[in-house]
Amino acid sequence: MARKPAPKPAATGTKPVGKLPDRDVKTIGKLVGLSDMVAKRSMSGKDPLIQIPLRTKSNTNWNKKKGILEMGDATADRPLFDLKTAKQFMQTMLHASTIKDLIEEGKTSSLRGVFYKAKHTVAGTKENTFDTQDESDPILEDLEVSLGALREELHIFAENRGTLVGNITLVDKGDEINARRMGSGGWGIPSIVEPDVIRFGKCEAKFVLHVEKGTVWNRFNEDRFWEKHNCILTHGAGQPPRGCRRLLQRLNQELKLPIICVLDCDPWGHYIYSVIKQGSISLAFESSRLAIPEAKFLGIRAKDYDECDLGDAVKIDLTENDIKRANEIAAYPWFAENRHWRKEIELLLKNGFKMEVEAMINKGISYVTEEYVPERLKAKDWLE
Amino acid sequence: MARKPAPKPAATGTKPVGKLPDRDVKTIGKLVGLSDMVAKRSMSGKDPLIQIPLRTKSNTNWNKKKGILEMGDATADRPLFDLKTAKQFMQTMLHASTIKDLIEEGKTSSLRGVFYKAKHTVAGTKENTFDTQDESDPILEDLEVSLGALREELHIFAENRGTLVGNITLVDKGDEINARRMGSGGWGIPSIVEPDVIRFGKCEAKFVLHVEKGTVWNRFNEDRFWEKHNCILTHGAGQPPRGCRRLLQRLNQELKLPIICVLDCDPWGHYIYSVIKQGSISLAFESSRLAIPEAKFLGIRAKDYDECDLGDAVKIDLTENDIKRANEIAAYPWFAENRHWRKEIELLLKNGFKMEVEAMINKGISYVTEEYVPERLKAKDWLE
Repeated sequence: MARKPAPKPAATGTKPVGKLPDRDVKTIGKLVGLSDMVAKRSMSGKDPLIQIPLRTKSNTNWNKKKGILEMGDATADRPLFDLKTAKQFMQTMLHASTIKDLIEEGKTSSLRGVFYKAKHTVAGTKENTFDTQDESDPILEDLEVSLGALREELHIFAENRGTLVGNITLVDKGDEINARRMGSGGWGIPSIVEPDVIRFGKCEAKFVLHVEKGTVWNRFNEDRFWEKHNCILTHGAGQPPRGCRRLLQRLNQELKLPIICVLDCDPWGHYIYSVIKQGSISLAFESSRLAIPEAKFLGIRAKDYDECDLGDAVKIDLTENDIKRANEIAAYPWFAENRHWRKEIELLLKNGFKMEVEAMINKGISYVTEEYVPERLKAKDWLE
Repeated sequence: MARKPAPKPAATGTKPVGKLPDRDVKTIGKLVGLSDMVAKRSMSGKDPLIQIPLRTKSNTNWNKKKGILEMGDATADRPLFDLKTAKQFMQTMLHASTIKDLIEEGKTSSLRGVFYKAKHTVAGTKENTFDTQDESDPILEDLEVSLGALREELHIFAENRGTLVGNITLVDKGDEINARRMGSGGWGIPSIVEPDVIRFGKCEAKFVLHVEKGTVWNRFNEDRFWEKHNCILTHGAGQPPRGCRRLLQRLNQELKLPIICVLDCDPWGHYIYSVIKQGSISLAFESSRLAIPEAKFLGIRAKDYDECDLGDAVKIDLTENDIKRANEIAAYPWFAENRHWRKEIELLLKNGFKMEVEAMINKGISYVTEEYVPERLKAKDWLE
């Protein structure tokens, strides 16, 4: 991935970090390197500045060979002595300092927590360091890209979202989670799932079935789908958060499990799949650690209305906005260059209606878990 | 509780339900009773109709002695032969039939699933049974009240939301969940937590600490608060869903655990507390199975700004809407009649700002878990 090379770790100027995990020692080194760089520039009489890689569409490239979205090399300077960037410079340094504290204390915090930690009125002025969280979150993303460290490595978490059950044992902060015995509730997927927090234990599962919503997950779990088909069952409560995507990627890369998605037949379902598979523009700088180029889209397919004889009740008319989104998504290179996906989106548009996974109940309460998905799996009938 | 007496179970007209749990046999009996009642009226030459208890503010009473909101006795007739109610009559019967199928098959479904199950075009017409889920959900609530059965007893679930860890073992559909060993993720609280799904095993915990958001829950879990203070730690991802509320109530009633809430110091935090404690108008018919009159509000308190020397960074100005909401909430009888709560809301309004739990990070990353909450617990300094 075309990630900015991180500043070299410095040997001095930080507290002893001997007891910290290797990952944290590395991140602290990057943080210290960043401030050393600023300090050195200043000492040599130059203006203090930091360089921030650009997270824009124009600096996002589609790497066809790797099958992921990547960030380009363009950067922007953020000098201290410039009215336009002085505040952002200060904000970046403040957050860098909070992150160093978090890592050294072995603690994590939320995006909102970090915002509050840095928020104060600058002494002798009426100016706040930050007024709203909207100012704060992008600065944290700036730090991620500049340092070449994932947010999780900066000890910052988002809201937990998503649940897992299935034929695998996980070790979560030393606790053994037997995902085969998690009842109706399941194990909540944490926001930070890096290898020093979550380790994989015994795993019989042959694939991961990822569904869009918790309600669909409930149907599959209640019918013990993961037991009957020897798999892991996950959902991400809609657009899966980073923790869920990273966990799926680790299951795919480390345990070689195919990730098979069951999402709604609508532009939103296609977009969720696209993000799981290729990454997103706003997070392109970490596609290599989040994207799963070989993820599969099993359904719901536009052809299912006829092929499964679903009946009119499943139809929900496409709105104008749906049609617009479908055309936008069809233009994504990984869809545009794939004739199966072109056909899929064309048929969705020709149908003029979308279909949700939950609509399958029309054919029977467990039709989706006992007939639809098993038949498609057997026939390997999916899009890639 | 002034709940409508349920129709008597009928001896005939249903499939054998010998293998179903007692709870389900009872619910099936109520469903069959409802349809028998309609059938009998028709056979005796009267118009078929069902009576639906009114879920309006005017039919909601504050039972001061019990400390909960209750539904009154007022009902509305829903006759078949009336253009205004014919469709709703049909919808009620359709959903009753779906629910009977669900229970007999030992399965559950989501609100959306039940909507799809009933949605179809009436033969020979262009009329749909249901057009949107907005029409469907209230019909299910009608059935809950008419039958005197919780939605969970009708085998219908909502999105799962909320997480639990702590010094307790739960048995979830036969799987033993050791909530002391759930790592950073925790056990996902299911939507249906009735005793035939979730049983309580060994429990050392002396209370439940319920926090508003997953991000705050992460802070408390990371600091092993539940271990140090021998409790159970839950969150409901904002306004807690029914599953979470019902579980808290069961922990309170069956295991006699105090429920202690740590919520934001704003009208939304007060409202969440009010719903946990007293129930809500829209669900007043099931307050007796959801409300926890003795739940406590530990913080954040309006006095904390001074008392804990929090600093200006924690302040967020009250909006006009906040002020309006605060005044509305102050008028709830259980707050209006409680001088401590009157004072609390007055001080919030006098302060002119709200404070979030996450803002406490200003005093240190673990200030809230290591100083604030332990000190308040020790002093029993909370509102009731």
